[in-house]
Amino acid sequence: MANETRVAWEPLKEFTVEVFTRMGMPPQDAETEASVLSWANRRGVDSHGVMLIPTYMEWIDREVMNPRPDIQVLKETPATIFIEADRALGPVVTVFTVKRALEKAKQAGVCWAAIRNTTHQGAMGYYTLMAAEQGMAGITWVCSPPNMAPFGARAAGIHNSPLAITVPAKRHQPLMLDMATSMVAAGKITLALDKGIPIPQGWAIDREGNPATDPKQAAILLPFGGAKGSGLSMMFECLSSVIMGNPMLGPTLFGREPGPPLKEKKVKAIGDRPAHYQRHIQNGVFIAVDISQFTDLEEYRANIDEMIDGIKALPKADGIDEIFVPGEPEYRTYEERSRDGIPLPERTVKNLREVAGRLDIKLPAALAA
Amino acid sequence: MANETRVAWEPLKEFTVEVFTRMGMPPQDAETEASVLSWANRRGVDSHGVMLIPTYMEWIDREVMNPRPDIQVLKETPATIFIEADRALGPVVTVFTVKRALEKAKQAGVCWAAIRNTTHQGAMGYYTLMAAEQGMAGITWVCSPPNMAPFGARAAGIHNSPLAITVPAKRHQPLMLDMATSMVAAGKITLALDKGIPIPQGWAIDREGNPATDPKQAAILLPFGGAKGSGLSMMFECLSSVIMGNPMLGPTLFGREPGPPLKEKKVKAIGDRPAHYQRHIQNGVFIAVDISQFTDLEEYRANIDEMIDGIKALPKADGIDEIFVPGEPEYRTYEERSRDGIPLPERTVKNLREVAGRLDIKLPAALAA
Repeated sequence: MANETRVAWEPLKEFTVEVFTRMGMPPQDAETEASVLSWANRRGVDSHGVMLIPTYMEWIDREVMNPRPDIQVLKETPATIFIEADRALGPVVTVFTVKRALEKAKQAGVCWAAIRNTTHQGAMGYYTLMAAEQGMAGITWVCSPPNMAPFGARAAGIHNSPLAITVPAKRHQPLMLDMATSMVAAGKITLALDKGIPIPQGWAIDREGNPATDPKQAAILLPFGGAKGSGLSMMFECLSSVIMGNPMLGPTLFGREPGPPLKEKKVKAIGDRPAHYQRHIQNGVFIAVDISQFTDLEEYRANIDEMIDGIKALPKADGIDEIFVPGEPEYRTYEERSRDGIPLPERTVKNLREVAGRLDIKLPAALAA
Repeated sequence: MANETRVAWEPLKEFTVEVFTRMGMPPQDAETEASVLSWANRRGVDSHGVMLIPTYMEWIDREVMNPRPDIQVLKETPATIFIEADRALGPVVTVFTVKRALEKAKQAGVCWAAIRNTTHQGAMGYYTLMAAEQGMAGITWVCSPPNMAPFGARAAGIHNSPLAITVPAKRHQPLMLDMATSMVAAGKITLALDKGIPIPQGWAIDREGNPATDPKQAAILLPFGGAKGSGLSMMFECLSSVIMGNPMLGPTLFGREPGPPLKEKKVKAIGDRPAHYQRHIQNGVFIAVDISQFTDLEEYRANIDEMIDGIKALPKADGIDEIFVPGEPEYRTYEERSRDGIPLPERTVKNLREVAGRLDIKLPAALAA
């Protein structure tokens, strides 16, 4: 791409730590946030990387996100933990929760963690990878107010609940599924907008419920797999938000704001973003399963390797060069970008320069004007 | 349908109990099996109803299914239970496991149950409904040897892992998602075969990996949602079979029989069935979450109702008469068939007559020749 600038991930991460420290976060929390953002960029999931910095700054300014949350354990058993996030930045409360959940799973075999009133979690695979790195299986998903049409409807009624599942392997990288229940993530539509190209039919509808191929008109996502994706996303809300007494869909469908009341603050934003970014709240679930309580962990890893080897060796469908397992293409990008740097689009670079100017901090040399 | 015979569900269930008792099952287990089969028929899921009786008889004769299994608890913690099914008929070991899991979840908040070496579970929603009836959320899935092509492959490598999730509501029936990760269940292809109609492209491929629209040629299922459904089904195997040290995919991909060794017995079968029915083994996971440990159960039920009301009231897409939530169409059929009887196709009736003749038991009067 002609209008991209490559920057090494380390200085970009250091810059990000500095941004969030200036925005009022304790240095350790700013470090966590920067780790999750830069991890997403390294994996090629740029929609969940540093392009979000201006949005997060705006959300902190508007008190949608809380840089110094009072995170509380509301309830716990040996196998569950229920956390009030107090609008913490997603990575802060989620990393906190995952650490506790992994400890519990080591004892009880499983832990079901519920996180109430968190905000944008970023790249979900990050958290489930924490489980895999300790020899456990990790499962997570989040639910927010509606951004997707249920099967059969022409208006938003459900959320495209991103989810991630990761398990450890041996020779291979951990298997990591990281997806949403929509045909595509909203970020892919923003990307089409930036590139000035149309989107395929079936990705989204406009505000009136008509098929949208112009990304500017695309207002409501469509579920993957029709009734199946639609049903899955509905059940995710029932298994998270509603169990936490903090429903996201029902109240919105009847015109009430979900989650705790927010002061509406007008602030000067950096860059522009889609309307659904104006307010943000979500609930998350994280489940850890301690594999070694059921089977030998080394045998498990070898069995996962065998499955991966077998699947990759299958005869390929027409037009397919290689059969990939979940997380594999992203891991290749991760290796490449960790070594060669992260290519940032012109618009992201422009926004980060404005961020640096406003906070009076130094940009990585590669990004300086 | 001209060639259907209606039969009340109670005598059909009694007949089914008698069949499985004669096949060597303890009366109480035969009762469980008959409950699950007749429940599927009442919900309109005929592919999982009494049409399976001849298949199950053949499997019992061939010692694929064990009518008198030695079900063992291999390991348990306050929040997990790991069961060896000894090739029990699915409903027998699963109902046994669900009861224990619900007790554990009442204490620990959650229970993760793993069932190794079970056989055909039947209609999965039955088990998660047991959770919902006790005010809990239930999640379950099973994994068997490959019957579906991973995204990008033209051969079988993954299984279309049926799954079910059920949560309780208040005025409404429990929300019940009961699906597989394939475009359609294999039963829908068998149904097209019986009806002599083609299947749509995208449902299945033939043995050589070419698109199949002739149901006779359809040998391998295709995943729903492309890479997403494919990835989900792979992760289900990793979270069930592989955690239990009893992988279904890896060994098959390298030409080894998965599961415990079976004696191959030649038997005389009743009716004919697809080749993939020749051998059967699977592993299952059941998860219970005790809602009342996180929020007030009555409030939960009311919130689910509100979500359902809101979704059903959304503006409808073109060509849609009513927006359904998961499990709703099946519940309407359940009410109708519980009242008016179950319509059985000619072929099923013919097979059940042969069953009655072989076992020397009386058919329900409506089905007698």
